[in-house]
Amino acid sequence: MGVAMAIRTVVLLPAVLTLLSFLLLPLASLALTQDFCVADLTCSDTPAGYPCKSSVTANDFYYHGLAGQGKINPLIKAAVTPAFVGQFPGVNGLGISAARLDIEVGGVVPLHTHPAGSELLFVTQGTVAAGFISSGSNTVYTKTLYAGDVMVFPQGLLHYQYNAGTGPAVGLVAFSSSNPGLQITDFALFANNLPSAVVEKVTFLDDAQVKKLKSVLGGSG
Amino acid sequence: MGVAMAIRTVVLLPAVLTLLSFLLLPLASLALTQDFCVADLTCSDTPAGYPCKSSVTANDFYYHGLAGQGKINPLIKAAVTPAFVGQFPGVNGLGISAARLDIEVGGVVPLHTHPAGSELLFVTQGTVAAGFISSGSNTVYTKTLYAGDVMVFPQGLLHYQYNAGTGPAVGLVAFSSSNPGLQITDFALFANNLPSAVVEKVTFLDDAQVKKLKSVLGGSG
Amino acid sequence: MGVAMAIRTVVLLPAVLTLLSFLLLPLASLALTQDFCVADLTCSDTPAGYPCKSSVTANDFYYHGLAGQGKINPLIKAAVTPAFVGQFPGVNGLGISAARLDIEVGGVVPLHTHPAGSELLFVTQGTVAAGFISSGSNTVYTKTLYAGDVMVFPQGLLHYQYNAGTGPAVGLVAFSSSNPGLQITDFALFANNLPSAVVEKVTFLDDAQVKKLKSVLGGSG
Amino acid sequence: MGVAMAIRTVVLLPAVLTLLSFLLLPLASLALTQDFCVADLTCSDTPAGYPCKSSVTANDFYYHGLAGQGKINPLIKAAVTPAFVGQFPGVNGLGISAARLDIEVGGVVPLHTHPAGSELLFVTQGTVAAGFISSGSNTVYTKTLYAGDVMVFPQGLLHYQYNAGTGPAVGLVAFSSSNPGLQITDFALFANNLPSAVVEKVTFLDDAQVKKLKSVLGGSG
Amino acid sequence: MGVAMAIRTVVLLPAVLTLLSFLLLPLASLALTQDFCVADLTCSDTPAGYPCKSSVTANDFYYHGLAGQGKINPLIKAAVTPAFVGQFPGVNGLGISAARLDIEVGGVVPLHTHPAGSELLFVTQGTVAAGFISSGSNTVYTKTLYAGDVMVFPQGLLHYQYNAGTGPAVGLVAFSSSNPGLQITDFALFANNLPSAVVEKVTFLDDAQVKKLKSVLGGSG
Amino acid sequence: MGVAMAIRTVVLLPAVLTLLSFLLLPLASLALTQDFCVADLTCSDTPAGYPCKSSVTANDFYYHGLAGQGKINPLIKAAVTPAFVGQFPGVNGLGISAARLDIEVGGVVPLHTHPAGSELLFVTQGTVAAGFISSGSNTVYTKTLYAGDVMVFPQGLLHYQYNAGTGPAVGLVAFSSSNPGLQITDFALFANNLPSAVVEKVTFLDDAQVKKLKSVLGGSG
Repeated sequence: MGVAMAIRTVVLLPAVLTLLSFLLLPLASLALTQDFCVADLTCSDTPAGYPCKSSVTANDFYYHGLAGQGKINPLIKAAVTPAFVGQFPGVNGLGISAARLDIEVGGVVPLHTHPAGSELLFVTQGTVAAGFISSGSNTVYTKTLYAGDVMVFPQGLLHYQYNAGTGPAVGLVAFSSSNPGLQITDFALFANNLPSAVVEKVTFLDDAQVKKLKSVLGGSG
Repeated sequence: MGVAMAIRTVVLLPAVLTLLSFLLLPLASLALTQDFCVADLTCSDTPAGYPCKSSVTANDFYYHGLAGQGKINPLIKAAVTPAFVGQFPGVNGLGISAARLDIEVGGVVPLHTHPAGSELLFVTQGTVAAGFISSGSNTVYTKTLYAGDVMVFPQGLLHYQYNAGTGPAVGLVAFSSSNPGLQITDFALFANNLPSAVVEKVTFLDDAQVKKLKSVLGGSG
Repeated sequence: MGVAMAIRTVVLLPAVLTLLSFLLLPLASLALTQDFCVADLTCSDTPAGYPCKSSVTANDFYYHGLAGQGKINPLIKAAVTPAFVGQFPGVNGLGISAARLDIEVGGVVPLHTHPAGSELLFVTQGTVAAGFISSGSNTVYTKTLYAGDVMVFPQGLLHYQYNAGTGPAVGLVAFSSSNPGLQITDFALFANNLPSAVVEKVTFLDDAQVKKLKSVLGGSG
Repeated sequence: MGVAMAIRTVVLLPAVLTLLSFLLLPLASLALTQDFCVADLTCSDTPAGYPCKSSVTANDFYYHGLAGQGKINPLIKAAVTPAFVGQFPGVNGLGISAARLDIEVGGVVPLHTHPAGSELLFVTQGTVAAGFISSGSNTVYTKTLYAGDVMVFPQGLLHYQYNAGTGPAVGLVAFSSSNPGLQITDFALFANNLPSAVVEKVTFLDDAQVKKLKSVLGGSG
Repeated sequence: MGVAMAIRTVVLLPAVLTLLSFLLLPLASLALTQDFCVADLTCSDTPAGYPCKSSVTANDFYYHGLAGQGKINPLIKAAVTPAFVGQFPGVNGLGISAARLDIEVGGVVPLHTHPAGSELLFVTQGTVAAGFISSGSNTVYTKTLYAGDVMVFPQGLLHYQYNAGTGPAVGLVAFSSSNPGLQITDFALFANNLPSAVVEKVTFLDDAQVKKLKSVLGGSG
Repeated sequence: MGVAMAIRTVVLLPAVLTLLSFLLLPLASLALTQDFCVADLTCSDTPAGYPCKSSVTANDFYYHGLAGQGKINPLIKAAVTPAFVGQFPGVNGLGISAARLDIEVGGVVPLHTHPAGSELLFVTQGTVAAGFISSGSNTVYTKTLYAGDVMVFPQGLLHYQYNAGTGPAVGLVAFSSSNPGLQITDFALFANNLPSAVVEKVTFLDDAQVKKLKSVLGGSG
């Protein structure tokens, strides 16, 4: 008698409840299996990500925060809305995260890197000019992207996106890390207390230029 | 005299060409730096991905193939259009790739896994019912997703998506691997020469059921 | 005078105790070295495994639970006895774990995947028919294995084992992860509250078939 | 009409062949998916393993070479039979491999390390005394293992196994790497041309001891 | 009007403070980004390293402990001063750490391995004879290194360094792990309670030799 | 009779040559073990590094190119001399590499990142002011380093070093990658054909500033 036949028989037997109790035994013993590890953001992070939340629901794997336009920063006429592990704890340990770009006409996501991940950009609306620069040879790779186009930006390389069209542009972004980071070169140089003399020394920018951008971006020193 | 001042002076000197030749020296010696590794698909793959193409342009980092609706499979009323390393060689070694889902009214992306990557789904149009099942406890995590929503599906776990709305649904998908794989459970069971008796033995499905689906999906045995 | 000679001299000197105190100094300063990280299962897991137990003995690296036959599940006439990190905390962080298969005559380890690890099977008794199915091309790879044979099942792919002989079969299994997971397709579909209508939609199984297996495996909906 | 119903209808239609041709389309486009990467040993190795063989059968995932007793080395009265990637190309890239230990009465697997993997030992026959030594604190962890027992040896740490019983002992071993390496301390010191004076300097062993073991193990210098 | 122009205008506007408040918004939301993870050594370690300290200053990324000569162990006439994660918490999770070697005339860093990392040695003073031994073929790779020379020692392989000159030698060492470990073969064999009979069995050393070295190195048994 | 005793006996027997031939058997079968993978730079790179050279000597693990002062670039009054895999093939696959910094009085290693590795700097001569900037919060971490000091710079973050003393400064650098890359922000912006208008748009620098630096650094556009 084949197994499928056995199954057919089994459903008729009162013994089925007993069988089920056997069946559930191994399931219980596997309860510690780690299929996922939703971040418990109340704990300290570790080099591999946050400790896992003990109780999880479907909502932990769902994120609504990219559904609408992000808050436009008037300086850059753009919004970068992250869904990294800090915003979307379900991606913890999964090696992936997301963001949304909203770029108004004339807007720009200024030169930046993601120190810990590669970026994949889907343009869903408008026209985006994007580029990255390789290290070593300083080669520039640029494309004009239209709705439906995809571009990939390798980990840690300087890149930018700006609106190259006549209406708003929107992009959905995925990263190869649950916490890729975002280092905007201008903010790193001009939005903190790194002394102007040091900025000038390590960038060869003129003093007036440095001071002007420090003033705009809120830096001191 | 500060460095920024030196720079200002330098531009006035005829020595600048000589300086540049010095300057370019270290650049050349770094020419082997690996910022990226666009797949040379004519070579054999390795466990870490394809060998790198020697000559690369911006087009290698760009993919247009997700811009339009994929070719709908009438059986599932849906299309899964991959932009894995085989289609989009620029993602090789970057730990990320993409796909597009088009799901007609009544359509479904049947139960499947990605053996080598986690999935992040952006719904860009319509309404999608999605779910995954944990191992061990067999817990089901389901959500109804609307345009703008994001859901993440942990690596290797069974999951599905189907159109839960009244118009076509579209999703953009990213994976945490340049080659995540796609194993559709029905195709694995019924679209090959695995003998019906074996399918029945390892799934407890009835013989008639197995034979019906083998017939639909083109399997033999 | 060579070093070996110096050593020979040293053993004669009363100064040896002083020397030892010097010697033990660097040992103490290396006390935080991580040779291993036995799981402290009372802590929350992390994406890289459990935090380390502070006090460890040889017993932490030893497991007796695979020595005897596992508890046979009458439905499948087989037992899968795991020695994953949840049962054997010494494997935490080491990228390896174990299990034992006992398959009675007519028994089967039903179609399943390990989402987080590859499997290496040593057959130690009896005859086992085993197979796995590749993704994409849905190619079936099957072998009949006798005592002493080894087979490897790549990470995340559907596979099965059943007794193909006339006596009990036993297998020892190793995994490339301390927590590989075990997702049995039938349990994922029929042993929970995933509604029958959804199961049917995402698998194309008939309603009667789904309801029969839900009944046998304890599912609802 | 539900999808399952559609399927039932579909099998009756002559259109099914057309449907199948659509269905197989995405399968073909996924043909480059890397579910596994059986080593092509005729190619140069890479840091991640060998390039993949282009044509593969079930036999590539199967290994018979551990089925019988290994060739006993009379010096150690034991045999270590590897099933690493060099012997068993199917494990390439899967992070796992195997070996078999045969230890006669009085035999020993001398002090050694696996530089690139942790070891999990199943004792299948006889009695084995095993131990490993931690770095830093030089703590010794020892167990006497009987048939059915499992012990794990963390990556890179010195360990040994010897027959502690009255009959032959057999062990099946798994490693957390497809190419874990095996460095036997005695062979590293005495089975090559490392000059005796250097061996003595870096081990504090006596000259006579070094020369005796070099003679036994075939070393020169 | 270009963006650079807009910036120039912006600095004149009283609205700049308002703009800055917008600007700082995304910065705050990224506060959980993990650029680094300085070890909190008061927590339990994990397989990926220690949990991160919550408050960090520049001093956490700085280490002064290698600036002077280490404490010479008279037995080996050498000092190995580690800057692993236990001493230098800033390297936690960064995949790198350091050490300093001071080797007096006649001194030696005895045969040892680093179970969890490769080593890169810069000789900064004196003359050092160094070598490592491959596994499998037991091939010896040796070099005499002078100030300015670099040598690399692959992970887990036995190696040594000794002073081959007429003055003190100094080396700076980097490792490919924040916690590479250091297992000195002699200490592993002779500086603990591993019984002499077992040492002899697993190394083939003579009883007198083992007892002599146990006496020198403080071992018992 | 113990094993050590057996060894003592064995050396007297004429059978020793036969024994050796047995002994060497397993060595041969392990000849494919990968202890290291010296880069064959004539092959295409892969995402995990270069294919392995088939024939290797001690010189492959040795590098002399950092022994002397690097070629000073007059523009920055400094030299960065890499010993990455392209210069030092022995580090391939080992997760480590090196470089030497020579910084004259007034010299600077301008603002840069290593996209693929963390950096550990040993200052061996002079005084170096160094700093890095975190992403997200743009916090600046700076230290003045003297001979003997160590500082670590996390992967992908902007950092700089300049001579803060009255004599030449020298640093030895290690990276957590065999190919960490070096992206100097100024070279990425001003030493290529990225149009000035784009540079201005993505950095907010003034047109005159951009054109001045393009002129100095050899950029066009």
